[in-house]
Amino acid sequence: MNPLYFDNNATTRVAPEVLEAMLPYFTEYYGNPSSMHTFGGTVGRQINDARTKLADLLGASPEEIVFTSCGSESDNTAIMAALRSNPEKKHIITSRVEHPAVKNLCEYLAKTGYRVTFVPVDHKGRLDMEYLIRHLTDDTAIASFMWANNETGVIFPIDDLAGILSERGIIFHTDAVQAVGKVPIDVKKTRIDMLSLSGHKLHAPKGIGALYVRKGTKFSPFLIGGHQEKGRRGGTENVASIIGLGRASDFVAAHMTEENTRIKSLRDKLETQLVQKIPNALVNGDTDNRLPNTSSIAFEFVEGESILLMMNEFGICASSGSACTSGSLEPSHVLRAMGVPFTAAHGTIRFSLSIYNTEPEIDLIVEKLPPIIARLRTMSPFWKDTCGHTA
Amino acid sequence: MNPLYFDNNATTRVAPEVLEAMLPYFTEYYGNPSSMHTFGGTVGRQINDARTKLADLLGASPEEIVFTSCGSESDNTAIMAALRSNPEKKHIITSRVEHPAVKNLCEYLAKTGYRVTFVPVDHKGRLDMEYLIRHLTDDTAIASFMWANNETGVIFPIDDLAGILSERGIIFHTDAVQAVGKVPIDVKKTRIDMLSLSGHKLHAPKGIGALYVRKGTKFSPFLIGGHQEKGRRGGTENVASIIGLGRASDFVAAHMTEENTRIKSLRDKLETQLVQKIPNALVNGDTDNRLPNTSSIAFEFVEGESILLMMNEFGICASSGSACTSGSLEPSHVLRAMGVPFTAAHGTIRFSLSIYNTEPEIDLIVEKLPPIIARLRTMSPFWKDTCGHTA
Repeated sequence: MNPLYFDNNATTRVAPEVLEAMLPYFTEYYGNPSSMHTFGGTVGRQINDARTKLADLLGASPEEIVFTSCGSESDNTAIMAALRSNPEKKHIITSRVEHPAVKNLCEYLAKTGYRVTFVPVDHKGRLDMEYLIRHLTDDTAIASFMWANNETGVIFPIDDLAGILSERGIIFHTDAVQAVGKVPIDVKKTRIDMLSLSGHKLHAPKGIGALYVRKGTKFSPFLIGGHQEKGRRGGTENVASIIGLGRASDFVAAHMTEENTRIKSLRDKLETQLVQKIPNALVNGDTDNRLPNTSSIAFEFVEGESILLMMNEFGICASSGSACTSGSLEPSHVLRAMGVPFTAAHGTIRFSLSIYNTEPEIDLIVEKLPPIIARLRTMSPFWKDTCGHTA
Repeated sequence: MNPLYFDNNATTRVAPEVLEAMLPYFTEYYGNPSSMHTFGGTVGRQINDARTKLADLLGASPEEIVFTSCGSESDNTAIMAALRSNPEKKHIITSRVEHPAVKNLCEYLAKTGYRVTFVPVDHKGRLDMEYLIRHLTDDTAIASFMWANNETGVIFPIDDLAGILSERGIIFHTDAVQAVGKVPIDVKKTRIDMLSLSGHKLHAPKGIGALYVRKGTKFSPFLIGGHQEKGRRGGTENVASIIGLGRASDFVAAHMTEENTRIKSLRDKLETQLVQKIPNALVNGDTDNRLPNTSSIAFEFVEGESILLMMNEFGICASSGSACTSGSLEPSHVLRAMGVPFTAAHGTIRFSLSIYNTEPEIDLIVEKLPPIIARLRTMSPFWKDTCGHTA
């Protein structure tokens, strides 16, 4: 059974065009780009070509791109680079709703002598800008704020942040893993110092990421080894996947308009109809500033995991939060930071679309989900007690 | 033109069997293994299967395997894990001939408050065991010694090291990137605490590696993020490449005998004939304890780079040292540590074979290389001056 895949913020399908671009680099052009011979050197030129394509997607220069193994490595690299390059500064500022690669690293650093400020968000997931500004100090080595939230799709005011932080001379890193390929990004216009992205969120394979590092930003490698990436990241280049990420950059650039029109309207239809047909269904997050592909809906008084399992019977794939925090039955730290009530946070489902989704798929979810929620509510003691419904 | 590829210590061809195993995981089974739905869960089971295959190759248990993005990340992870888990200890012991992922990291750490001992090697690349033992202290947090050298193929006495270090209660990490798949390894018999390996040295793709961590070894993640790899390495799993590494583990296990018979004898033939036909050609390193696939030969009084360029004309791919240190015209740190004279180190070529090499290829190199060396020597002022030859 082909899945009805609505979990694209967890990972995306590798575009067939991307796989096709990668294929020659496994068994045929398998040379090491660092080698002296033509067989390796040719591969090196393909890597440069991919670097240019990715740079173009961001409005960056190719030499500002450092390839990494994933978004998490990019995040770790950015934060550690800023701290190592500014050893006299001991303060980090970030938000309460970051991805675990930023959040857990900052919590670890807080135990090793750094001071970390976690800026709160309001009930719609919007950053408390006043709190943020109040907590910037001369000791602040790095500010790390995600471009768009992986669970709710809420977009932070990156232009404003860039303005405030560059004025204060504070290094600004943004985890743009969920934003790249979905919304236009131009580092020429927005003064970001470092930006993380991940291939597998934009139809390249898993296991490849990149970090944009603005020219002139002080840098120190996280993964220390050989001379690769101009000394900024040791380890033999993941050739096929780098070439895949280059091809995927072109692919998402070509589909950016579709993402923001067709996909956005499919998402809106799904959301509107589900909220209409299902009582006590609430959309999480700021619907005015959101990724075009993401909808986080709380179905009150039911368990997200139970919804997922019942949707799974129909091949519908979605998520109850971030895939990176799954395995835990705690409501997500994002929804908790937003103050979403326990009964709503627990029943939250994230639908995240890609250009491969279709209208008939939306219709099928709209048909299948209301009876699932109704059935689960008949089993929920909270539902009858609280609402007096009998479902 | 198909290359005559003798640079397998730099990187190997992905085995067609390995690519075949990977292919379904790009466009078809592209789910995130952390997802709740069956579509992702199925992928998770395939990862476990690959983990078991790799564990079998090493005599390890599957839960002792942590997948990483490359050998360099494995090395960084092992050393940082040992230091973070034993914060009271400030001494590291390693050798002078390690891969840059160990060497450069240790040099960096030496600047940040750690004491590092670099144990010397003799003219054959053999570890000075007495020096090593004399420099072990109660403050030693980790000993990191490679299994086999990437440039010369020289094998360190890992069993002896394991015995000495475990007796002293010192964590023993070995960078086995060049050894895994070429020589039998059994961590049940050899008391290694951590072992690094890299997929692309054993016919899996670039961009995947692993770290063996013996059960009970204190550990702290290097790449901090989500719950993946049981909290030992954040970042979405590189699914296709992990599955490739699993398949490659079976592949190299099946070819281990061939590696140590046919490939070894091809290597020996190449080496013997080149040394016979070319005056002033010297084999670097301990030929009694060497990888079966590696030959490092110094052609005195010529430049390695010039030899590579002229061999390149015939499609012969080899290396003048480690691909990870190329780009520099300095003789490699490995040959310098061995005290190989300048005139020999500069003219050193590494031939590294794989199961894809054939006897006719050997014959072709034996035919083409002697006139190349002769021609280069006619241009070398050192040659005539020093040896009185007229080539």
